[in-house]
Amino acid sequence: MTKKLDATVFHNGFLNSFDFVLTDCDGVLWNRNEAIPGAKETINALQDMGKTVIFVTNNSSKSRYEYHRKCEVLGFKSSVDRIFPTSYCVAVYLKSIDFKKKVYVLGSSGIAGELHSAGIPFLPVGPDPMPETEYWYNWVAKELKLDSEVGAVVVGFDQHVSYPKLVKTVSYLKDPNCVYIATNIDEQFQTDLKHLVIPGTGAFIRAVEAVSGRTPIVLGKPAKFLYDCIKYQYPDLDPSKGIIIGDRLSTDILLGRSTGLRTLLVLTGVSDLNEVERCSNSNCENKQMMVPDYYLPSLADLGRLMGVIQ
Amino acid sequence: MTKKLDATVFHNGFLNSFDFVLTDCDGVLWNRNEAIPGAKETINALQDMGKTVIFVTNNSSKSRYEYHRKCEVLGFKSSVDRIFPTSYCVAVYLKSIDFKKKVYVLGSSGIAGELHSAGIPFLPVGPDPMPETEYWYNWVAKELKLDSEVGAVVVGFDQHVSYPKLVKTVSYLKDPNCVYIATNIDEQFQTDLKHLVIPGTGAFIRAVEAVSGRTPIVLGKPAKFLYDCIKYQYPDLDPSKGIIIGDRLSTDILLGRSTGLRTLLVLTGVSDLNEVERCSNSNCENKQMMVPDYYLPSLADLGRLMGVIQ
Repeated sequence: MTKKLDATVFHNGFLNSFDFVLTDCDGVLWNRNEAIPGAKETINALQDMGKTVIFVTNNSSKSRYEYHRKCEVLGFKSSVDRIFPTSYCVAVYLKSIDFKKKVYVLGSSGIAGELHSAGIPFLPVGPDPMPETEYWYNWVAKELKLDSEVGAVVVGFDQHVSYPKLVKTVSYLKDPNCVYIATNIDEQFQTDLKHLVIPGTGAFIRAVEAVSGRTPIVLGKPAKFLYDCIKYQYPDLDPSKGIIIGDRLSTDILLGRSTGLRTLLVLTGVSDLNEVERCSNSNCENKQMMVPDYYLPSLADLGRLMGVIQ
Repeated sequence: MTKKLDATVFHNGFLNSFDFVLTDCDGVLWNRNEAIPGAKETINALQDMGKTVIFVTNNSSKSRYEYHRKCEVLGFKSSVDRIFPTSYCVAVYLKSIDFKKKVYVLGSSGIAGELHSAGIPFLPVGPDPMPETEYWYNWVAKELKLDSEVGAVVVGFDQHVSYPKLVKTVSYLKDPNCVYIATNIDEQFQTDLKHLVIPGTGAFIRAVEAVSGRTPIVLGKPAKFLYDCIKYQYPDLDPSKGIIIGDRLSTDILLGRSTGLRTLLVLTGVSDLNEVERCSNSNCENKQMMVPDYYLPSLADLGRLMGVIQ
């Protein structure tokens, strides 16, 4: 059962129970471009007391450097080598399989930036729209060229998704040797816009699957690749001395539970206590694996227990 | 078991066994803008001998009037009221539920044309691209407006599919009272372009489902609504006196079998005899329902049996 991380739990050796922290970003540290109140004081205090804080996010829209800059702007202490967005994991994965060809990216500049840093060639990202012609099929047949050097397709979030991009994605995937990578399979972004639903990468993955029949290698949470990336760079991390802080049961908490980390849910993002209760009461093993050890309304509450926030 | 429609079958009263013909279009009558050789002679001869020939297509990209014009250009005798594209079925469906609000269309001018003809208000179709801004979310939050009078979403084929269109589609569908219609769920278009795979409406449907959790009312084959539209306009049609000619087992033949029509597969489009054999040998009842009564290499072969083609 989930416990509130209250003063009793806290004073019963909570802080000494871990050496390192994986913290999700969206919904935990910030929402969009605004820091969540108290998050930076808490994260910075954990680092000041010697905890290794590692930033993990399924969001592929920025590179490590861009996230580092965002941390600086919003006041979170960080270093580039402690930031693990899925954009970076794409480059790590391709290096790990000694990939030598070109990458086609249905995604944005975050992925492009990481591929560039890793010296992996890729086709340009950005808008690739359908022209306004009466005969779309003729245009596709005549103008839409594939690059024979492409050997991998990466699907991440792409606000410029278009029909030509979809055609290219599924056409490259016709070749069963073409590597197919998804940064994550989150169907929606969290939003406080009451009237709008904001589709995520998972929507593109499902469209591509319907056409190509292909299932991607998923790098982001709850898949373990992201955690493997971290362990590769920090081989001494012992899961029994770690905790993950997240806002989403199906990604953060599930990854934590399945890798043996302790798990802390904060309620400043996607999941709420009703969802925790549904998972607790479910007979499904996968749902049971989404139940966190602890929860708190916000990271600020941890800061208050630590005495760094009034 | 499927039989080849050979001279023995033909002379055993084949032509007298039906009064009306439903014929699929793409892959049976034409491919893109070229008539399949012999198709027009055969179709026209069937009409000359008094058969009612009805054109049925899942393709929503043209209105009835536009298909009529295409028939004229390619030499097929037709009349507007015997042409049933899913674009037209959208309008019929909305009339059948006495729909009074506005329609949001993720689709093209074929649907718009039919809604216009039926006097049903709809939001404009065509490109609705994402601008090139660093802050896509802020743009979406600020600029993307919903129309509160929308009460139905139609998803058909849209070569201008874009992120703003996806956001609008799934956001309208947040309202459980918003009617959700799919013209069809075909994942791919048939193509003879060896290197390209051409995604169909089914890809968009799967993306929308992943985000919204909504399942559409499907109008196109193999769903029966298209057939119901025809029966509504031609109430005297007796399925035991009808045949459907198609190129796709999973749409044309399945619809024919499930409505009690005879079924004739032509091999000028999507399905081949290997697929027929796999369906015949399958234990799955749904696959068994895709096995046609007859097959022919092409409509021209029927014309030859009829003596209208050398």
